[in-house]
Amino acid sequence: MTVPLLDVTTVPAYIAGRADLAEVVDATTLTVREVGDGNLNLVFVATDAAGRSVVLKQSLPYVRLVGESWPLSQDRILAEARGYDAAVRHAPDLVPRYHGLDVDRRVLVLEDLSAWSVWRTALDAGVATPGAARDVGRYVADVAFGTSVLGSSSEDVRAAVAASVNPEMCRITEDLVFTEPYVDHPHNSWDAALDADVLALRDAALLDEVAALKYRFLTAAQALVHGDLHTGSVFVAPPGTPGPAAKVFDLEFAFYGPVGFDLGALLGNYLLARARAAVLDAPAHHQAWLAGLAGETWDAFEQRVRDRWASHADTALTDGFLDAWLRQVWQDAVGFGGLKAIRRVVGLAKASDLQTLDGPERAAAARAVLRTARTWVQGRADVAGPADLPDLVLPDVVRPDRAVRHDAPRVGA
Amino acid sequence: MTVPLLDVTTVPAYIAGRADLAEVVDATTLTVREVGDGNLNLVFVATDAAGRSVVLKQSLPYVRLVGESWPLSQDRILAEARGYDAAVRHAPDLVPRYHGLDVDRRVLVLEDLSAWSVWRTALDAGVATPGAARDVGRYVADVAFGTSVLGSSSEDVRAAVAASVNPEMCRITEDLVFTEPYVDHPHNSWDAALDADVLALRDAALLDEVAALKYRFLTAAQALVHGDLHTGSVFVAPPGTPGPAAKVFDLEFAFYGPVGFDLGALLGNYLLARARAAVLDAPAHHQAWLAGLAGETWDAFEQRVRDRWASHADTALTDGFLDAWLRQVWQDAVGFGGLKAIRRVVGLAKASDLQTLDGPERAAAARAVLRTARTWVQGRADVAGPADLPDLVLPDVVRPDRAVRHDAPRVGA
Repeated sequence: MTVPLLDVTTVPAYIAGRADLAEVVDATTLTVREVGDGNLNLVFVATDAAGRSVVLKQSLPYVRLVGESWPLSQDRILAEARGYDAAVRHAPDLVPRYHGLDVDRRVLVLEDLSAWSVWRTALDAGVATPGAARDVGRYVADVAFGTSVLGSSSEDVRAAVAASVNPEMCRITEDLVFTEPYVDHPHNSWDAALDADVLALRDAALLDEVAALKYRFLTAAQALVHGDLHTGSVFVAPPGTPGPAAKVFDLEFAFYGPVGFDLGALLGNYLLARARAAVLDAPAHHQAWLAGLAGETWDAFEQRVRDRWASHADTALTDGFLDAWLRQVWQDAVGFGGLKAIRRVVGLAKASDLQTLDGPERAAAARAVLRTARTWVQGRADVAGPADLPDLVLPDVVRPDRAVRHDAPRVGA
Repeated sequence: MTVPLLDVTTVPAYIAGRADLAEVVDATTLTVREVGDGNLNLVFVATDAAGRSVVLKQSLPYVRLVGESWPLSQDRILAEARGYDAAVRHAPDLVPRYHGLDVDRRVLVLEDLSAWSVWRTALDAGVATPGAARDVGRYVADVAFGTSVLGSSSEDVRAAVAASVNPEMCRITEDLVFTEPYVDHPHNSWDAALDADVLALRDAALLDEVAALKYRFLTAAQALVHGDLHTGSVFVAPPGTPGPAAKVFDLEFAFYGPVGFDLGALLGNYLLARARAAVLDAPAHHQAWLAGLAGETWDAFEQRVRDRWASHADTALTDGFLDAWLRQVWQDAVGFGGLKAIRRVVGLAKASDLQTLDGPERAAAARAVLRTARTWVQGRADVAGPADLPDLVLPDVVRPDRAVRHDAPRVGA
């Protein structure tokens, strides 16, 4: 189905028509602006005269970046709504306040977090965000625990698996993450200096591991996962904000999949931020902080799962099982993390961490990402925990003629 | 929903009302008899004056064995219909001819295979059935390949996963196979002589593996599996019948699960047959034939998957992936096989292979099953293939005073 699209002129009447929003904003005094990149969705911020505001998100029926030649069902907002429903139930403080789905118009209404930053933007700017990595680890733990057989009955989980199917969006991930970067495909692009590095990825040993991880993505229906939990899907709080340091958004890829996929998306994107900081010679304390993010997220995830395990529903799942489960989730995360980093260098959707660097630095950072990511994918079975995670593999020569510029990190797009 | 139940007096009018059966049997000259154990379903054979016949299967709204205190949705016949739909599409010669589902009445109409034998009954009688183990291996391969991402698009598979959810029946398996045998539960029973053997199963190392296999059953949505593929769910052909030696039936547990679960059910039930034959001192050639069934099924499965692999849809899944996938399916099968054997000794649903033995032989066979099954579960990661499958572990003393009776094996119930 295709529904009529909102624009800045029609949003006030739309909000006025929703009685459930009467207490949230004053529909008679709204100012509306369109925000967001508009690639997949329309996003509006509506602010009333008292300064109260909400965000409206409506799915577009195609990928605007590519054009109407890439149609995309507006039904993906139903998947996003399922994601928010689960997040509100299991990790309510770690997502924007959610005012529900209007299924007829394919519109979600959410808390306006314009005063917060997108985490990737903060990372690009060299800003440290204490607690954010911990909070997203807790987010993954709480949603995974609550939506899986760790925290719910198997009947409820099986019903939720059926209700949460999201084939069209999963297919995008399957193609962009697991397939296209490893073959000749028009979606791919990279700096010419990286030719050898990219082509080196196409050997049988690595491709076997990529296939194993793809199959795991396709078949491991463990929990309702976010499905695209990179640093661009996380808001970080302005300094001094009470409560959590991070909130997760953009849940339209939500589906029942492997818990390690979300954690891997974070690990892979931390790797991009690390590579950027390294080639920019960011201050040592900042680089050290970035190097610790993977452990911060994992430790928070593991601790939260262990805390909740005391109340787990199915006593046939033993404490020994939990230990083995955590090991497997961690290994999955490392493998998926490697692939999520590689796709950002080679595939369709680039990341500002690297794209906003100058050419030689960009190539050096990208090379470091590819080399490191590969060790993650192929070595994941031997990585017991964050302390053993293969470190960033910087090329021997980054840019010998480059001035140290840690005083002027770039702000990404 | 509960629908009116058929009985022998109403079946003719029911068949007469179905135009699609007019060419199959003559509804005006039918003789009807009720067959089957009637625990979960009504099963009728309707035969016309010309000797043509069909089977009708209607689901009961409760477990008759236990009574109306154990209600069970008649919707499970919808799962069975999905199973037959898939089998007809992917392995049509290896199931009874299927005349479709009457959703309003919860009735399936199937080929009458009364002239065939239930495989377990033949095994209990000491009858060898050449080719049956091979054919069920091919059945699992064809349905698994066709309903999984090996043979279908991921979108189709994800949609099928959603459509094939079967929580109520899966829950029965979860409880009876993976939970109850390992705790004190009123469903359990065993010969007093086995007390030590049964209680020995309740140690942490084994329970961790049971938990891992339960979680795999709960989350590995690989293919539409049969869900209860023991030797009582297989018909074997009378000698000289052209075509396949086996056909699979009773698909009401069908769901998207691990491919190794069906293969494991077969392995576990072959183990029961082997233990029976051993304590009965069956002829060496018969025992050798039974000992080869696991390999016969596995080899047929593997060969069929490899044959079909030439046409597999997703080229991101490499040949190396296939090898790893087969290893994993085999290991799963060995583990699930062990648990399926154990539940038949300890849990609610016993098997005639052991139940029709006299007391001391029954205990000896049961002990052999428990000991062997345990080596399967705990050693499955080290078993490369059927040649390495730990052999039947017979107790040192079976029944020293027993006369050799291989000339008079029992026929099971």
